[in-house]
Amino acid sequence: MFHVEAYFSIIVLMSYYDFDVRIAYADTDRMGVVYYANYLVLFERGRTEFLRNLGVRYRDLEEKQRIFFPAMESHVEYLAPAHYDDLIKVRTYISELGGAHLIFKYDITLVESGALVARGTTKHAVVNLLWRPTRLPADLHDLISKNLTK
Amino acid sequence: MFHVEAYFSIIVLMSYYDFDVRIAYADTDRMGVVYYANYLVLFERGRTEFLRNLGVRYRDLEEKQRIFFPAMESHVEYLAPAHYDDLIKVRTYISELGGAHLIFKYDITLVESGALVARGTTKHAVVNLLWRPTRLPADLHDLISKNLTK
Amino acid sequence: MFHVEAYFSIIVLMSYYDFDVRIAYADTDRMGVVYYANYLVLFERGRTEFLRNLGVRYRDLEEKQRIFFPAMESHVEYLAPAHYDDLIKVRTYISELGGAHLIFKYDITLVESGALVARGTTKHAVVNLLWRPTRLPADLHDLISKNLTK
Amino acid sequence: MFHVEAYFSIIVLMSYYDFDVRIAYADTDRMGVVYYANYLVLFERGRTEFLRNLGVRYRDLEEKQRIFFPAMESHVEYLAPAHYDDLIKVRTYISELGGAHLIFKYDITLVESGALVARGTTKHAVVNLLWRPTRLPADLHDLISKNLTK
Repeated sequence: MFHVEAYFSIIVLMSYYDFDVRIAYADTDRMGVVYYANYLVLFERGRTEFLRNLGVRYRDLEEKQRIFFPAMESHVEYLAPAHYDDLIKVRTYISELGGAHLIFKYDITLVESGALVARGTTKHAVVNLLWRPTRLPADLHDLISKNLTK
Repeated sequence: MFHVEAYFSIIVLMSYYDFDVRIAYADTDRMGVVYYANYLVLFERGRTEFLRNLGVRYRDLEEKQRIFFPAMESHVEYLAPAHYDDLIKVRTYISELGGAHLIFKYDITLVESGALVARGTTKHAVVNLLWRPTRLPADLHDLISKNLTK
Repeated sequence: MFHVEAYFSIIVLMSYYDFDVRIAYADTDRMGVVYYANYLVLFERGRTEFLRNLGVRYRDLEEKQRIFFPAMESHVEYLAPAHYDDLIKVRTYISELGGAHLIFKYDITLVESGALVARGTTKHAVVNLLWRPTRLPADLHDLISKNLTK
Repeated sequence: MFHVEAYFSIIVLMSYYDFDVRIAYADTDRMGVVYYANYLVLFERGRTEFLRNLGVRYRDLEEKQRIFFPAMESHVEYLAPAHYDDLIKVRTYISELGGAHLIFKYDITLVESGALVARGTTKHAVVNLLWRPTRLPADLHDLISKNLTK
């Protein structure tokens, strides 16, 4: 017997968070483009809002559960400049969830043209108050597992 | 009778701390000059080094004596632009010491020409761990009193 | 004869622009509150969006009309701390429009409680490409005049 | 016959530039440690001073020779936290010089203990005013070649 549902049983989950931001003077350097360190600031905003969008407030994780995600590694590719007053889109997703680490990925595009401006990765340890590697609480681990984008 | 010493009895105390810093890309905006908020960062470095020069490590004040100097007010006059790769001099001094506040002043000049780039003032509360106004320890109060520049 | 309308003939124009922003790690210092220089960055975003809201893109002013608003002066009062992950509201308005300068004012409040966090003023010159004082184009002068908040 | 000089004929060229910097409030985040994006700012200062130490002023390269080194890629490993008021050493060297790119490397250590805080790499294109890949002038290419640290 033929089950048509089977053809649709592979559900593609795309879980990411997008936010737009306007490039200010503060973001630029004397070339008139975003200073290369400032993408990491945008990535941080992306991480926090990605988690908030899943229902997790990172501040509570720190202050109530005493779990921290310090950066272990960052990597940025600068593909095209973003200029003053450009509107850019920051897309954030989690690509890997390990025993005591997680990896976020980011794409930054120009809203007007869709052109890719930068691409980044940050790897974070999961640590406790003593800065020792620790496991994520089971419910948070599940939640993130279901929202991975490989 | 004539007392020649009288002519020298007005002792002018000039107590300030100078440091030089080179303008980096990070400091500039798309006009190629120092972004206006970044002078407050230089002022902070000036305050800390001014105190260190008096023998006071501000970090110890916070961590050991539990005394903090949060900013109550800042004022900056932007007089001339400082450009990328210019060497600037930051001069810091304390102009006022009150019961539970102190006022720092700053002059920023171009090293090459001596031209005045910016002038600033920051007013700080003296507070304890509960963020309540508190008196400076007597020895620190004395030390700063002797190093005021009105 | 009594004209009741007269009592309402004084139209109070309140022209301001509000935007909300979430405090990120990048904005904080080791006290867990917004670093005192970073309010000036928020003020800059406020100015640009205030103007955009009036239909004026500041980037076009610079790139097409060759008119610039360099900061001449800034003043900030720090009234209460804003903490990590707090949502704050930045209110921007223009309080003075002179021959070759304008003054912006800003109020920063906590969205949740409405508490006033900081208050600021920035004074800007109106200059041309040679950095000489210049008049605003008449249409822009009119537009801003109608949107002043004394 | 034995030539003792032979033992010294392998000249180890170590060409790097070191500078020390004190961690300010401005550099920290609410964990009390250097905010992860700020290492890229230190790297930029390292690059400029490395070149200046070779006799090359990067500003002149841009303004006189119209050669620019925009970042193509950055990579940072965060190995240990650097705290407020710590003195850190930034070591900069060039590890690769290609046809139209160069790679800088950086080590950041605590001055007191020598502990490694962070390690980084930045890859830069060599471009002209039109942002097209270009060759370094021969004399600069030679100079850098002689000061590579693999």
